[in-house]
Parts: sequence; C-alpha cells; structure tokens
Amino acid sequence: MNSFSPPSSLGPVDAVIAALRALLGDRLSTNDAIRQQHGRGEDTTTPTLPDAVAFAKTTAEVSEILRLCHQHEVPVTPFGAGTSLEGHVNPVRAGITLDLSHMTGILEVNAEDMDCLIEPGVTRQQLNEFLRDQGLFFPVDPGSVCTIGGMCATRASGTNAVRYGTIRENVLGLEVVLADGRVIHTGGRTRKGANGYDLTRLFIGSEGTLGVITRIRLRLHGIPEATSAAVCQFPTLADAVNSVITVMQLGIPVARIELLDEVQMAACIAYSKLEGYAPVPTLFLEFHGTEAGVTEQASAVEAITADHNGSGFAWAREAETRNRLWKARHDAYWAGIAYRPGKRGITTDVCVPISRLAEALLGAKADIEASGFEAPIVGHVGDGNFHTIILVEENNADEMERAWALDRKIVQRALDLGGTCSGEHGIGLGKREFLETEHGMEAIAVMRSLKTTLDPKGILNPGKMFRN
Amino acid sequence: MNSFSPPSSLGPVDAVIAALRALLGDRLSTNDAIRQQHGRGEDTTTPTLPDAVAFAKTTAEVSEILRLCHQHEVPVTPFGAGTSLEGHVNPVRAGITLDLSHMTGILEVNAEDMDCLIEPGVTRQQLNEFLRDQGLFFPVDPGSVCTIGGMCATRASGTNAVRYGTIRENVLGLEVVLADGRVIHTGGRTRKGANGYDLTRLFIGSEGTLGVITRIRLRLHGIPEATSAAVCQFPTLADAVNSVITVMQLGIPVARIELLDEVQMAACIAYSKLEGYAPVPTLFLEFHGTEAGVTEQASAVEAITADHNGSGFAWAREAETRNRLWKARHDAYWAGIAYRPGKRGITTDVCVPISRLAEALLGAKADIEASGFEAPIVGHVGDGNFHTIILVEENNADEMERAWALDRKIVQRALDLGGTCSGEHGIGLGKREFLETEHGMEAIAVMRSLKTTLDPKGILNPGKMFRN
Repeated sequence: MNSFSPPSSLGPVDAVIAALRALLGDRLSTNDAIRQQHGRGEDTTTPTLPDAVAFAKTTAEVSEILRLCHQHEVPVTPFGAGTSLEGHVNPVRAGITLDLSHMTGILEVNAEDMDCLIEPGVTRQQLNEFLRDQGLFFPVDPGSVCTIGGMCATRASGTNAVRYGTIRENVLGLEVVLADGRVIHTGGRTRKGANGYDLTRLFIGSEGTLGVITRIRLRLHGIPEATSAAVCQFPTLADAVNSVITVMQLGIPVARIELLDEVQMAACIAYSKLEGYAPVPTLFLEFHGTEAGVTEQASAVEAITADHNGSGFAWAREAETRNRLWKARHDAYWAGIAYRPGKRGITTDVCVPISRLAEALLGAKADIEASGFEAPIVGHVGDGNFHTIILVEENNADEMERAWALDRKIVQRALDLGGTCSGEHGIGLGKREFLETEHGMEAIAVMRSLKTTLDPKGILNPGKMFRN
Repeated sequence: MNSFSPPSSLGPVDAVIAALRALLGDRLSTNDAIRQQHGRGEDTTTPTLPDAVAFAKTTAEVSEILRLCHQHEVPVTPFGAGTSLEGHVNPVRAGITLDLSHMTGILEVNAEDMDCLIEPGVTRQQLNEFLRDQGLFFPVDPGSVCTIGGMCATRASGTNAVRYGTIRENVLGLEVVLADGRVIHTGGRTRKGANGYDLTRLFIGSEGTLGVITRIRLRLHGIPEATSAAVCQFPTLADAVNSVITVMQLGIPVARIELLDEVQMAACIAYSKLEGYAPVPTLFLEFHGTEAGVTEQASAVEAITADHNGSGFAWAREAETRNRLWKARHDAYWAGIAYRPGKRGITTDVCVPISRLAEALLGAKADIEASGFEAPIVGHVGDGNFHTIILVEENNADEMERAWALDRKIVQRALDLGGTCSGEHGIGLGKREFLETEHGMEAIAVMRSLKTTLDPKGILNPGKMFRN
C-alpha cells in the first residue's frame, strides 16, 4: 500500500547543490532539521529526506533550479506548506525539495473583474485577509493552513465547494515552469474561452509531476449581502445523511453543508470548546445571498431536517460565533488527532454520487465499528465527499496493517458505488493503486504519456500518482 | 488568414474506404452530395471535400474506423451537425469525415444525481425535450442546433453560461476513442475529484484533434421553481453595456443577460416577427430562482437599467412568450444573415474581462461604422463575450479582404484589453494565428507536444488549431 523505492538520486546531486548555493545563498539548505521538516506532510507515510531544500523567491529562480536539476537528472519535489495527507511532498528519491512558501506576493487584485494574481506560497487565509476591505473573498477552503499553489497542485476543495466549486473552477490561468526550466502562461483573464487546449486544468491536480506553478490568477467572489450559519443535530447518522441528500436533490443553493458524526463531534467539542452541542451526528450549515434569499433557503432546509428528526437550528448569527463554528469545522482533522493523544490519522477521502451517499457513509461507519478502530467521520457531504480519520499508533505494524485494510475497504465500496478514491486530497503515494482501478489502465497509459512528454527525464515529483 | 493546404491524403485512402464499406455498408458514402454536405460548416471558409463520409453508430465502429485510418495514415475529420463557424469540420486534407450525428442514444438519466450519459450526436434540444418531464434541464445552449459532442469538442457555451457555466463545467466524464482506436474513459460520476490528470478537460475544447468523443456524462440542473424574462431597451449602446457591467459587478445572479445592438435588433424584429420592440440597443434578460428570489433579482436589475436610461422592463411572463423571445435570440445569427439576402457572415467571438467590455464593444462598433460594413452585434455580455456578424459577399475578394481586416482589428483590440480571440466558437482554421498571439509560442509548443503524443501520425482533424 504505502511502500516506495528507497532514496537514490538519479544523478549527481552535489553539482546541483553547489550551483544552487551560488544562486540562492543561504536559501539553499542541507541542514538536517530543515531536511527533516521536508520529509513528509501530515500523513502516516514513512518520511524520506531530500539532499537539500531550495527556497525560491522568483519565477526566474524556479526556472534556473529546474534547468539545473533537469540537466543533471536530479529529482525535484515541490513543497508548499507541507499539509499533504497522501505523501505528495515526500522526496522518495531524494534530490532537491523546492520550497515555494516564500513566494507570497499578491501581485494584482482587480476588484471590478473579481480576479487576482498571486504567487503560489500565499495561503487562503492571507489572501482573504488581504481582500476583506474590498468586499471580495476566495471561497476554496481546505481544512488546513495550506498554500494556494499546493491547492492548485492537488485540485483542492473544501466546505464552500458545494456552492462555489473547487479550485478547478476558480483558477483563470497559471504561470508554470516546465521540467526543463521553460516558463509558460496558461488561460487568461476572461471567464471563459474556447481558445486551445486547457493547459490550466491539465496542471491543476497534476501534483507537481508535470510542472511547478509559480503564479496563479484566481477568480474571486463578492462577499454575500447576507450570511447565516446554523447547526442541526440528529439522533442517527442516517437522519443526517438523508437530510443532506434531500437538500441537494431539491437544488437548494446552500453555501456549506458539512456533516460530523458523533465521534468527530465529541472530538470537536473537546478540541474547540464548542459549548451547547451534544456529541451526536451534526450538520453545520451556511447560507449566502440576499437577506430574503438566506431566510428562504434556511427555512426550506430547516423543514427538511425536521422531517428527518433534526433538532431545530441553533443559529450562529453573529460573525464571531460563525467564525468560531467554522474554525472548529476546519480544525476537525486536528481535533480528531487530538482525541487520542499520541496517535496519527489515516485519512480516507472518498466521494460518491449524492444518491449513494447514505450507502457509502453508513457502510464506512459499519466497517469502522466492526474494525474496532476509532475513526471520526467528517465531510463535505453536499458534494458526496467525506473523510474518515482512522486513529492509529504509527509504530504498531499490526495496527497499521489493519488500518490500511479498513482504508481499502472504505475506498473500494465507494468505487463500487460509482465514486472516486479521492474527492480532494489527491493521489500522491497513498492512492496510486486505486487510481488504476478507478480509471482503467488505458486511461492511466494516457496520463503516463502526458507525464513522459512534459517531463521526459522523470525529475518532477517522481514516484507520485503512478506506481512505477 | 483563411488559407490552408490543398487536399492531399496522407495515405492510401482507397484501402480504408474498402475496409470501411465492409464494416459500415451504406453508412460509408462516397456520394458527391454527401461529401459536399461535409465540406464546411456555417462559416465562409473555402469548402473542401472528404474522400468519403463514414456514419458511425457505435463506439466499436468509431474505434475500428480510427484504427484503420491510423494504420493507413488517412486523415479523419469528426463531424457533428456541421454548425462550426471557424472551419472545424472542413476536411482540409481530405480523407474520411467521421459523422457522429447518428449516435443519438440517451443511455442513462439519473434524476436523483442530476446527471445523464449520452452519445455525441444528441442535440441539446433533443436532450431537453427528453428531460422535461423529470424536472431537469441541460443549460448549455449555443445559438444553433448542434450536437453535444460538437459542443464538447469546441468548449461551447451560450446564453446560460453566466449562471450555469460553459460545457467545461457541465461535463463529468467522457468516453474517448484515441487516434489509434484505443478507448478510454475519463472523469466519473462524482461532482469533484482529485483523482489524476484532468483528461476530461483536456479533450473538451480539443476540437477533434486529440481524440473522438463517443460518450458524454453531463451534469444536469433542476428546472427552477420560478423563471421570468424581460426585455429592456436603451437609447445608446453605451447605456446598455454599462448596465451589464454594473449588474455583473454587483454579483446579481442573472440566468441570462444578452445584448443586441440596433442592427441586430432590426434583423431579429424582421426575422422573428418580434412585435412591440424598437430597433435600438436591447438587453434580453432571464431570472431563475424561487418566486421571491426572481422578484428580488429583477427589481435590482430594473433599478440599474433605469439608472442607465433603460426603458421599463417589458415582461415575458408566459412560457410561450419567453420561448418566442429566446428562440429569436438563438436565431440571431440566422436573422443577421437574412438581413441582407445572399450574404454570409464572418463572425467574431471575442471575450474580455467585464471591466473592459465597454471599451471592447464600443470600439468594435466604431470600427464597424468606419469600415462601411453592416455587422450586427450580439453577445453573452454577462461573460464579457460578444459577436459581430460581418455581412459579406462571399465571392467579392476585395470585400472579403476588407472584412477579414475588420475581423482582425476587433480581435486584436480584445487581446490588447486582456481578452481572448474566442469565447466559445473555437480556433479551427480561422483563429490559429491569434492562438499564438494570445498564449505565446512556449505554450503553443506544449499544446503541440500533447497533440504529437496523442496523435503521433497527425491523422485527427489535421490543419486545425495550429498553423503547420
């Protein structure tokens, strides 16, 4: 499941390190602590160390780093905030880790066109802080402080995707440095275009294996006139899931509809000090629109939840209360981990058609209960996407084996229901075998041929996406 | 601008024709009339004839046709309804035209997940007729009776894109036959996924140059609870355009906002017998939502148009009146052509950021007036996209030259304003030089490398997208 080749550079890394030191000065590090910080993300993969970490500040530097690594056939692993849950940032064949977190420029904000141009190291939190005074926001919000470059690379989404789409729908164009150092520009500033192959979408979700993203033109959205949030609690998980299915099938344009099972809710109550809520299956909801529209949506959803034995809505009317609620939701992963100190999480990320959500989610719950593991469930259920965070003792080989078996069972059921192995976390190391099952080997062969075309020496994030 | 290589097959077309006749029987035609029907689309390109036309009915047939053509290096030009405005369907190097218009199966409708699986020859009109009883609709609506396969190939959009997105946002997955006959499946049934390279988006907009689309899984939408349409007329084009810009910048979720200048309006009044309207700059509007939401949107837009000297809204409340109005809008191209009998249209398709729409559109209007041509203007202005239909005598070489010069001027201005040469019609033969200007030769080189990877013998729709 989780194995990969031992570190072994493809080429003469020392020559590259010397050249990069000349280029970057002390932004090229071979320090052990720095290398260890870049050994893995937030997942349970086995860390591997790069030979050196290069902190780039400009596109020209990224280009030169890639040109050198390409020339010497040295692997390059792009790195943002290191929050991957699927082993994307592990430099499994050593070489250079290319850290883009210092590229934090917000280069343009065009309020009248609702777009902006940023560097890849900007986080969504930084961008939204910057935008607030202009009445604009960027909606894509994974549950971590991650870079927007990393979000592009992994085709991220989050709680708002049900209304505003994922990062795929919110990027207008990219600047990308290719494996050999060439720089290209994709997309443009318009909302649509029938203007050539969709290179933007090709790089989004390519997980650093086809090129390195150095600039991103994002689509922004106006802060809605009215926003209200609510919490609704249910006696059973089935009641909560069936409420979600009905809301989605009626086409009510909720901005957010998030489910937490009783284990996740208990974890969040403890971690985020959420007072007044019971550790039972719960929906967190948000409505965006005009004052009248928000009221209308909320009363429609409240009626549906009442039909499914939901409590009345507990309203979070003030911005401060809302922010606390959504902070708790975004911290759900950390709350899950903290629920059993010393454990780490193996996180599944399946996504299914909405009509199969009850089957997928209740099936996963039954599997978890049969397994004996504790595994909070939390999800962007409006999109049919949910996570189980299987809590494991990382050093217990037997437990890890059983946990991976549980993970595989949950993923396979989702695939059998017409779903995908990854709604938003990506393939990385952890989901490579499922990528094959899901798309079939003919489609995988096409993906591989694109990889070979754009990165003929295989230096870009080798070992990820495909089993070699 | 509009030149291309003379017909010359790459390989032994006779052998392919013999094999295809054995495969397809009388669905392989070398009849002159049939070949002429497949010589060009609705544009002003010089028709060229295929050696034969193959009418496929199944994926297996498409696969076998491509396998044979690949083996013998015979060009293949995919063909849907033949409504291209950019020369996409011209078999400029002869060979086989692969007509997919007989593949009209609607294979699945999953009402509870709001998706469906169709064959590429289905038109949007056929699909919506089929869906009506289920309370669902497919929103992407180019102004022609075109096939959905062709819409995928050209990344089409239409009047609803401002609210529902283009075909790019409404396709969940594809079945594609590759140049050598291999069949792949892309995407899936879920609303989102971080599951490998985005092959779906790679084929959407690839204009038949990377593969032939044989099945399409579409995202559908619920027919809104309430719909209302209105017409608003203005003393000047600037007033109409500035109304649109304000509506979009305020984020009012109009379902449709379409502009017709006074020439286009005169043509539509004559062609579609639109009574009660004056030949002045006009907006056609539609609002979707709940009863209350529609009222709220409409009154907000009405106030904006009043600020810009618009007439009060003329409401089209009954479905029949609405349908007549939108039929007239969809027939705008035909109305434009019919406005001066015997002429054909050279159609521009620029799209710009909304803040530059006034500059782009009023600039185009001034260029048209200076040129002496009649050229109705009509556009999906909520997306920043508009068309000028330059009416020309096709056999007057001097007039054609001057018309192409006008076309180039309008496109170049849009590019200078951060726009694109094609919002929805595609590149085909007509916009190849602008594709280079717009993206730069480094990005074009990447596109070409993808083409070479997926179609190494260059048999798929040769001569399109790229200048050779």
